[in-house]
Amino acid sequence: MPSDFDVCVVGLGLMGGSLALALREAGWRGRLTAVSRNPATLAAAESSGAIDQGFTELAAGVAGAGMVVLATPVRTLLRQLPEVGSHARTGAIVLDMGSTKVEICAALAGLPPGLEPVGGHPMCGKEKAGFQAADASLYRGKTFVLCPLPRTSEVALRSTHELVEAIGAQPLVLDPNAHDRAAAAISHLPYALAVALVNAVAEAGDPLTWTLAASGFRDTSRVAASDVDMMLDILLSNRRNVMEWLRAYARQFASLYDALSEQDEAALRLQLTLAQEARARLNTG
Amino acid sequence: MPSDFDVCVVGLGLMGGSLALALREAGWRGRLTAVSRNPATLAAAESSGAIDQGFTELAAGVAGAGMVVLATPVRTLLRQLPEVGSHARTGAIVLDMGSTKVEICAALAGLPPGLEPVGGHPMCGKEKAGFQAADASLYRGKTFVLCPLPRTSEVALRSTHELVEAIGAQPLVLDPNAHDRAAAAISHLPYALAVALVNAVAEAGDPLTWTLAASGFRDTSRVAASDVDMMLDILLSNRRNVMEWLRAYARQFASLYDALSEQDEAALRLQLTLAQEARARLNTG
Repeated sequence: MPSDFDVCVVGLGLMGGSLALALREAGWRGRLTAVSRNPATLAAAESSGAIDQGFTELAAGVAGAGMVVLATPVRTLLRQLPEVGSHARTGAIVLDMGSTKVEICAALAGLPPGLEPVGGHPMCGKEKAGFQAADASLYRGKTFVLCPLPRTSEVALRSTHELVEAIGAQPLVLDPNAHDRAAAAISHLPYALAVALVNAVAEAGDPLTWTLAASGFRDTSRVAASDVDMMLDILLSNRRNVMEWLRAYARQFASLYDALSEQDEAALRLQLTLAQEARARLNTG
Repeated sequence: MPSDFDVCVVGLGLMGGSLALALREAGWRGRLTAVSRNPATLAAAESSGAIDQGFTELAAGVAGAGMVVLATPVRTLLRQLPEVGSHARTGAIVLDMGSTKVEICAALAGLPPGLEPVGGHPMCGKEKAGFQAADASLYRGKTFVLCPLPRTSEVALRSTHELVEAIGAQPLVLDPNAHDRAAAAISHLPYALAVALVNAVAEAGDPLTWTLAASGFRDTSRVAASDVDMMLDILLSNRRNVMEWLRAYARQFASLYDALSEQDEAALRLQLTLAQEARARLNTG
């Protein structure tokens, strides 16, 4: 049962582009438009059929839409919000897809009273950035966190659920603080480790390591290839939670290092076993 | 051009079982036998057609083979070597598939003079252990490191190449020290990070983190599900190299932590960019 409000996607990178493609594929009945600084990206999105019309100006793009979906990096999005607030039509839903929620939801609360803000974060992604990496199936089967504000109406939240379900994702309503703490653990912390891992190996400069790199290294380091602008914004926007997790992680790392250093086989075995069991549960659970 | 010497695989776990299956699938003309403490595993391997005959006794199993392939965990393998030396027939090749090479090659050097030792390490694996996880395609397209000893004959090394190529892998002759240093960087270090990551998240005990865990966390932590006995042996056998890499990594981690802590955006961007570029090269190179 496709819905019929017009959707304007702001930012046609991987996430925004995939959203437009997924809505089109789902037979979304409302008009699909997009805002991008890059006319070539808009042309590509139009010719692929992902959008009906593209705009290089934010104000013109958001003016007609029943829902504005912000798909730019966190700090760009925060800068764009006042202008979205000035130009979105009364009653429009403003949904963001930023990877952190506390700072963004606080900014969404500052939108003019006639608008319907909803924080959002789809739990998916790829290392490739840009519209050329967009994929209609990116959201399929994935959790899409929603953080409605106290002022968000039931009707607006229901419409947001409709959009999320249309792209094949599963909505999960969460408190922004709970989201940011969990996202730091399962996304921002792994990214930081992957960056340090790649930099440690790169710094040594031994070509043999890259030649031998098998699936273990490739998987552990995969997220280090993520878009730098996106990740920089995320780390800075969720800095407190990330640092707390980095410290918790550093304690585990230190006890592993100590056990190995002291050849304390019992301690080492215990740590490896706890991790093995916890990770194996994630495969089955 | 399938070869015709008899191969006895010692240890029918993931690696040994996959080797037997791959040799069979390649039409290996020699007899395929295996040694396992577990009669049920031998029965499963016989009924799947992977081996012609199973032995629960190491001495009986290795006695008839032209090549003995040791596919047990590193420390088990080191314990088994003297008995292999006593019972393998004169001229037999003794190839191991242990994940560290310095300690094992030193032990291989102690085999009786009539034998042909070759150190080996296929750069592949899975988190699932045991013969039930064995897969004829495990080695296909993967690098198989070979460390011939000074005493290893050209003929024996050529036969070992034949076996490696029969299972679809690419032989790469390396010095044991170079191997262990590189393996520590690209396999043992990522494993240690994944263990600390999973334990940090598990310790916090928040079920939401596991619910939200998306592909980033799953990939970064995947190797933490590896077999504990195997990894414990590897870490202890390659302890010096692993600790050196853990320290190099810890320095990178600390500078990332400091940059975030001080909100030093330029330093942070530099580190993320270096990692992004190095990791992206691994995808294309």
